[in-house]
Amino acid sequence: MSGDIHDIRGLHVIVDGEHTLGRTHADVASAALRGGARVIQLRDKRLTVRELYPVALELRELTREHGAVFIVNDSVELALASGADGVHLGQGDMPADVARRLMGPDRIIGVSTHSVDEAMAAEQSGADYIGFGPMFVTATKDAGAAKGPEGLKLVRGCVRIPVVAIGGIKASNAKQVIDAGADGIAVITAVTAAEDVEAAAREIAGQFGVH
Amino acid sequence: MSGDIHDIRGLHVIVDGEHTLGRTHADVASAALRGGARVIQLRDKRLTVRELYPVALELRELTREHGAVFIVNDSVELALASGADGVHLGQGDMPADVARRLMGPDRIIGVSTHSVDEAMAAEQSGADYIGFGPMFVTATKDAGAAKGPEGLKLVRGCVRIPVVAIGGIKASNAKQVIDAGADGIAVITAVTAAEDVEAAAREIAGQFGVH
Repeated sequence: MSGDIHDIRGLHVIVDGEHTLGRTHADVASAALRGGARVIQLRDKRLTVRELYPVALELRELTREHGAVFIVNDSVELALASGADGVHLGQGDMPADVARRLMGPDRIIGVSTHSVDEAMAAEQSGADYIGFGPMFVTATKDAGAAKGPEGLKLVRGCVRIPVVAIGGIKASNAKQVIDAGADGIAVITAVTAAEDVEAAAREIAGQFGVH
Repeated sequence: MSGDIHDIRGLHVIVDGEHTLGRTHADVASAALRGGARVIQLRDKRLTVRELYPVALELRELTREHGAVFIVNDSVELALASGADGVHLGQGDMPADVARRLMGPDRIIGVSTHSVDEAMAAEQSGADYIGFGPMFVTATKDAGAAKGPEGLKLVRGCVRIPVVAIGGIKASNAKQVIDAGADGIAVITAVTAAEDVEAAAREIAGQFGVH
């Protein structure tokens, strides 16, 4: 399972330097991988592309060592330059079909969505998976009203590609999100801002049956 | 001459939606091209990649019709997606040698520089031309102390690739910049914020001997 870069089921840890309690991206990613993270996503809106490039190369190496997936947030060029497995696109980024032309058929393209319509449009445009949320109220990002496991169930029924739930998910509420049909769970602070990153990752990753 | 996309000698007009007196990027670019602009560069830090993409496609079409060169500022992915002739990189963008891997050998890579050292490093890293400035004091961008035509002459003597002067250049001081050895002159407001964009472009473009 860990050999298939298209298997993005399980725990996604979004590593954002703003939420690591001062630890490096690589330190946090490393610990999250030891804890069972399936996907590491690099996101850091404070840094320039120039600054992110060496960080991306480092995370590329780390994820490869763990047979995990490496995804870059927002930047198609950074994903390509660092040899990432894929890119995660928000509504302000390159459209998925245009990104596909640049990324080729074999890399992963994820798209953030917040409704059934957006989810179906993302699938239509060639996304390999969708992010969907926010599940719960969250302080990290203002992403609209909480959709909850019920909203996820609805979306899960409308698309065939994997759905990765995001927004306010932590160890204590992960189970209900997985039970609602989430193929993956993406977290930021629940793991990256934990004192023991590895243990925090393990506590969520362990809730996915086979992982 | 207008058939060679690598000939970037002449007037570069940087079209930034913030400085067009409310006119569209395409309207301003169109008029600048009629006035003899050799290169149109798209730069608009207020817009997302998603928003810039259709604008880039439009400018790509317009420049092609005029046998002119189209360059995208900052974004390698936007340059690739829109079929631009090249990208112009600042110090926070992708390093030129990394951009080259993504862009291939035939597209143009320009790099902003502000000293002889930066200019030589840019040439070393495979840039096709350098931007150099600021020539004069400018309100558009805080880019450090004015280098003047003397600074340009110095840089011109240290690199073999074309040097495009930028920063506070207008019709009344363009001649001294060209005389100091500038292969190109890049302007923003001197053309894009002029009431008559075409005439403003012509007044500067006309100062390059053969154009």
